[in-house]
Amino acid sequence: MPAAKYVGLDVGGTTMKAAVVDDAGAASKAVALDTNPERGQDAGLNTMCATIELAVKTAGLTMADVAAIGVATPGLMDIRAGLILDPPNLAPWKNVPVREHIQKAFHKPTAYQNDANAAAVGEKWVGAARGARSMVMFTLGTGVGGAVVIGDTVIEGEHSHGGELGHLRIDMPDRGRRCGCGALGCLEAYASATAVVERAREALAGWRGHTELKQYQTVFDQKQFNAEVIFTLAEKGDECAKKVVDDTAYYLALGVCSAIAAVDPEVVVIGGGMAKSKAFLAKVDEYVRRFGLPYPTLTDRYAKQLGRSDLPAPVKVVFAQLGETAGYIGAAGCARKLANGAT
Amino acid sequence: MPAAKYVGLDVGGTTMKAAVVDDAGAASKAVALDTNPERGQDAGLNTMCATIELAVKTAGLTMADVAAIGVATPGLMDIRAGLILDPPNLAPWKNVPVREHIQKAFHKPTAYQNDANAAAVGEKWVGAARGARSMVMFTLGTGVGGAVVIGDTVIEGEHSHGGELGHLRIDMPDRGRRCGCGALGCLEAYASATAVVERAREALAGWRGHTELKQYQTVFDQKQFNAEVIFTLAEKGDECAKKVVDDTAYYLALGVCSAIAAVDPEVVVIGGGMAKSKAFLAKVDEYVRRFGLPYPTLTDRYAKQLGRSDLPAPVKVVFAQLGETAGYIGAAGCARKLANGAT
Repeated sequence: MPAAKYVGLDVGGTTMKAAVVDDAGAASKAVALDTNPERGQDAGLNTMCATIELAVKTAGLTMADVAAIGVATPGLMDIRAGLILDPPNLAPWKNVPVREHIQKAFHKPTAYQNDANAAAVGEKWVGAARGARSMVMFTLGTGVGGAVVIGDTVIEGEHSHGGELGHLRIDMPDRGRRCGCGALGCLEAYASATAVVERAREALAGWRGHTELKQYQTVFDQKQFNAEVIFTLAEKGDECAKKVVDDTAYYLALGVCSAIAAVDPEVVVIGGGMAKSKAFLAKVDEYVRRFGLPYPTLTDRYAKQLGRSDLPAPVKVVFAQLGETAGYIGAAGCARKLANGAT
Repeated sequence: MPAAKYVGLDVGGTTMKAAVVDDAGAASKAVALDTNPERGQDAGLNTMCATIELAVKTAGLTMADVAAIGVATPGLMDIRAGLILDPPNLAPWKNVPVREHIQKAFHKPTAYQNDANAAAVGEKWVGAARGARSMVMFTLGTGVGGAVVIGDTVIEGEHSHGGELGHLRIDMPDRGRRCGCGALGCLEAYASATAVVERAREALAGWRGHTELKQYQTVFDQKQFNAEVIFTLAEKGDECAKKVVDDTAYYLALGVCSAIAAVDPEVVVIGGGMAKSKAFLAKVDEYVRRFGLPYPTLTDRYAKQLGRSDLPAPVKVVFAQLGETAGYIGAAGCARKLANGAT
């Protein structure tokens, strides 16, 4: 009997990506098809099936080789019921029975998961949190995504909103920045790529020294005034950009501290396009140790105080490793767990 | 064969309480012995054994009737290793092998848990969160204790600091109140009984109208200027006390919102001596709905938007029901889980 294979499908607002993943977490060449949500959800379900079929074909396999399928979609969703509810970036889709449709189309056990949760499962399986008992993940993108995984259990939540770490509160409502969710003071309103750009504009308005950010704001297309540019300029030593990036690390660290207080994980994984600078990661780590509970962060000092050498290592703050592949690899990981008998 | 019985022991800084609990969560008459931590940890371990024996005897049973024992202690601790490390209110104890000692003394399977976690297990078993899939608990006392329980799993954390919800951050470090942990802006620095008294003193200093709090501050023993008095006066309509209590509800709700963002529980349980006023609970609930993620809190409106009647109910915010019995009932619950084969 050949080793089991799983298909992971990651449905996004722009494209759907899929690959076949083996029992060790190695993925075949990924395929992608346009999502075109505006064509409606029946077309969307057909595209999901087509992407899965294309991934299997591209891997040189047939559906008979596939033990189970995993599908990840952006929220809002009902994970337990296997439904997409009404995610803003998949409008006008509403109440889409994803898991049932895929399961019936291919007659395979089908797992369904939130895309941020799936990415965390992927990172825990074969990425930055490989071998960790527990992890939380923050993904800095247009928003701030999150996930909490304890042992083999994704904390899905009762309303499929477990691990919504972008909505950890870091400031009081009476003075906090406004978040897309409507509240004031959520982490996402400070540390998303969108928020980084907003804060950079504010920093520029009051900046007296030289900064290359100025030309991005005035000369180029506004699209070029983005988080990546700000992070790149910070790495090159631009003082204004450095201030914005340092503040981002500070805000993110406050969210990380609350996640540590809630679940005390072994590893904190930071993902997303803009977060690739080692200096940024080091700053997050420094702030977590400064503002977090002392024991999960400073175990070394504590071990010395108590004369123990067997205490668990301090919490690690690391970058994600799988990039955009995390979603479909994690979706396949969920399929694997389902096929192996977990609920 | 008679139904299984479990002993739950709750070790506090002042007393140790124990009772025998049956398979349905009903507890026999509780017994208590003085902890006297200053007499040292060997004496402490002996007192633990004596309290367990006394509970069994008081219940009219013998140790042969007991299937397993559960012990709850305050942190700091190493839950996995079964050790008390060096909790401030058990000084000078250090590296105390609680689980091993009790297990060897009675030759019974012995569970070991943090006291706040045990209280949550008790509330989930036979108290305020009975029947819930998942819950978080905040206990307002000298500090703010917390716990997260998902299904049957207590989120213990990698450093035994899971569910340290008093250290969820609710304000920025540059302007937050100082917490006992050293950080600025932790929930505990706003919503513990100690913090309530501090904030009441501050409110009084600037209060121009009438308030009965003034006489508590000036005439009586300072010990009478406590959180219970402040909550009682608030219920009687004292405007200054009402402001302090309302602010407490606001701060607590911000912590609850972050806990909801992290794990999206079915029920949020609020425990502790001062939190018994329905008006206070209603305020917490109101603020959670105002400042929290809309979907876990306002599912009804969302269900209408989507035309669904099968979505899970909004998160419930309720008072604890077991009071001081929660610790030993929960410890017995942990013993029961252990005896039934869970890890």
